Amino acid sequence: MITIVAQFTALPGKTEAILKEIEPMITATRRESGCISYVLHQDIKNPDNFAFIEQWKDQASVDAHMQSDHFKTIGPKLNALRVAPSTVHLYKEVI
Amino acid sequence: MITIVAQFTALPGKTEAILKEIEPMITATRRESGCISYVLHQDIKNPDNFAFIEQWKDQASVDAHMQSDHFKTIGPKLNALRVAPSTVHLYKEVI
Repeated sequence: MITIVAQFTALPGKTEAILKEIEPMITATRRESGCISYVLHQDIKNPDNFAFIEQWKDQASVDAHMQSDHFKTIGPKLNALRVAPSTVHLYKEVI
Repeated sequence: MITIVAQFTALPGKTEAILKEIEPMITATRRESGCISYVLHQDIKNPDNFAFIEQWKDQASVDAHMQSDHFKTIGPKLNALRVAPSTVHLYKEVI
């Protein structure tokens, strides 16, 4: 299993617009065969900070997700609404 | 539920020492009543980068964890083995 943490910061006042763009992409992503979980989180203390925490079956599942239409089209849309592209880490469980 | 992502970078050559220090703390933490999950992750591409991904019942559970002996003693030990203290985000689920 691969766990992805993808963190980004919304531009001021753009949180609602981001959620509107993201929701259909989340629905489509959860239908992918290798997607175990895919949840958008919001920082409790700094509500402009968001993180996707994602669990994928394997690297092939991640690769397929990154080739999906819903993934390829969301990035440019979000980049107009956030400070910078996501900071992305791919993790394996250790303990 | 509160999800915590706590990320840190090991000093060069200190990964094994960190894992040795952390393991008993993880065992003790998982026994806390408000701990839903508590997993140490390692970055697949940059193995010196680690992240705890934690799920807690509520803020009271987080507060109790931070007052525990195993939490209060691990920080100084780890600070001798990592580049800087953890970057910590407390998240709520949005979508």
